[in-house]
Amino acid sequence: MAELSYDAAGVNIDEATAGLASAKPLIRSTHTANVLSELGSFGGLFAASFPGYEDPVLVASIDGVGTKTLLAETPSHFQGLGRDLVNHCVNDILCQGARPLFFLDYFGTGRLRGVELQSVIAGVAEACSAVGCALIGGETAEMPDVYAPGRFELAGTVVGVVERSRVLPRSEIRGGDVLIGLASDGLHTNGFSLARRVFAQDLDSLREELLAPHRCYFSSLFPVPDEILAIAHITGGGLVDNIPRVLPEGTYVSIDRSSWKEPEIFVQIRSRGVPDSEMLQVFNLGVGMVLIVRQGTEKLAVERLGSVGETAWIMGRVLEGNREVRFE
Amino acid sequence: MAELSYDAAGVNIDEATAGLASAKPLIRSTHTANVLSELGSFGGLFAASFPGYEDPVLVASIDGVGTKTLLAETPSHFQGLGRDLVNHCVNDILCQGARPLFFLDYFGTGRLRGVELQSVIAGVAEACSAVGCALIGGETAEMPDVYAPGRFELAGTVVGVVERSRVLPRSEIRGGDVLIGLASDGLHTNGFSLARRVFAQDLDSLREELLAPHRCYFSSLFPVPDEILAIAHITGGGLVDNIPRVLPEGTYVSIDRSSWKEPEIFVQIRSRGVPDSEMLQVFNLGVGMVLIVRQGTEKLAVERLGSVGETAWIMGRVLEGNREVRFE
Repeated sequence: MAELSYDAAGVNIDEATAGLASAKPLIRSTHTANVLSELGSFGGLFAASFPGYEDPVLVASIDGVGTKTLLAETPSHFQGLGRDLVNHCVNDILCQGARPLFFLDYFGTGRLRGVELQSVIAGVAEACSAVGCALIGGETAEMPDVYAPGRFELAGTVVGVVERSRVLPRSEIRGGDVLIGLASDGLHTNGFSLARRVFAQDLDSLREELLAPHRCYFSSLFPVPDEILAIAHITGGGLVDNIPRVLPEGTYVSIDRSSWKEPEIFVQIRSRGVPDSEMLQVFNLGVGMVLIVRQGTEKLAVERLGSVGETAWIMGRVLEGNREVRFE
Repeated sequence: MAELSYDAAGVNIDEATAGLASAKPLIRSTHTANVLSELGSFGGLFAASFPGYEDPVLVASIDGVGTKTLLAETPSHFQGLGRDLVNHCVNDILCQGARPLFFLDYFGTGRLRGVELQSVIAGVAEACSAVGCALIGGETAEMPDVYAPGRFELAGTVVGVVERSRVLPRSEIRGGDVLIGLASDGLHTNGFSLARRVFAQDLDSLREELLAPHRCYFSSLFPVPDEILAIAHITGGGLVDNIPRVLPEGTYVSIDRSSWKEPEIFVQIRSRGVPDSEMLQVFNLGVGMVLIVRQGTEKLAVERLGSVGETAWIMGRVLEGNREVRFE
């Protein structure tokens, strides 16, 4: 029984080492002045020094890219998933007004391939660099028997900072305030289990479209201007579940569904028999972010967002009521 | 095709909601004074205020519990895995002298069961409370087709803080300094793919022993006294790979293997044909943490550690050489 080794048990440390080695320069390139640790230490070190902040608050979020991973085939797809992961997390903490400080990624798989790991890290590092976020930690776990063959998990944690007096959502949201939608780039990272089922026969022809990157809204929205009272990231649960997360008691929102045109991919999913109630709760339906802006500032806000490359439109209003979303 | 729903596609949102609802009081009970957010917000908020620290440094680590998950059957096992996850991460950042501030957990599975989710979170919350760490975020992902049936992934991120002048390892480690071993409680969270293979026929009788919780060394070692120059958490890679992570250039360590008795579980694994080189790199072999202490302080350190409930012993020395581990 001399063949009893980690390798024979399905754990291949060399592939991890090789994949990680080639990704090191990319990881280092994300390191901001606050990063104090070298790669390979037990924990990543980040100076808790935030010049310009009077009362800094850390904002942290952990998330994954879900079953979007099941569509990845090429190194470029793996790189895209790395970007998706970071962008998803960065958008999440932007909902509280934060800018990202550092990121840690987790890659779990049944059988590790160095080129896949390297591609994922390249995408993570690239998306981190784009928003000034340092990649200070990560873990790669090879777990035969946990994952179905060829399957993997990609998750990560972002930690950001926001001035305490500028934490979103603001408490002064009230009836009359206005909802602005920001266009998504396709499904982002939600609803893939359902989409894969719906498109079972046609997955190959739609693969690139479904893998469109999760859009990052950070550069368009930060620093968050005074007129924006709340930001909701439209992920799992859709408009229905995510908007109430930022609504104060005593308010609801009314959304005009004719205010935007659902992108073709959602029309196709719908046409294959998915009921509207399900569409609304599973997909973003073309709306990546919803902003609540102070009444009277909406036109200027839409204009400003358009000028930085976002497709933005007035999609509804805040009214007095019971923390829900109604469609007109 | 009206049956096309998230539920029919294998995603059951109600189970997640139920499991999470019953865990909420446990999550809230971990919240320290720095926690500013309510459950359900997009990101967890934690005041970046560290009274008593002159130059605070954040220390972050992400990790999982590996294939130890494959042994879990009962709610109590799931709770144990939650504790394992936190303890593993807390030990990791303790290697740099940090105390934990907050934690975020990630639970990915093929088919979510509310009771399992609740048990995992209960274990996470319990282990967090024990070390004054706030559970401020988490994500549950149900991903049919990613996981083999009944399989799941448990990962998490800890963020802690350390005074900059007290970051470990210290640079003054040199020849003559002494290695102290701290006993582990079994396998902790490493080597399970190999252990499961070795014990294939006898897994049932060894299940409880293999699931012994990953020991948390925080309360015994924090605040880290001056004589401790480095701490190495013995996880994947064993003594061989983890000790060099804290060694400065120009030093190596010599370990006396007769200084401790390998626990019976490792003797059993070895007796089934796993070569020694593999044993050394895959398992902790009974050593959960290795400390490097200043020459001359080792006896007092061992005594002090014994008085707080650790099994501690002098296991070797630092010598001048080439950043490696040699066994005598």
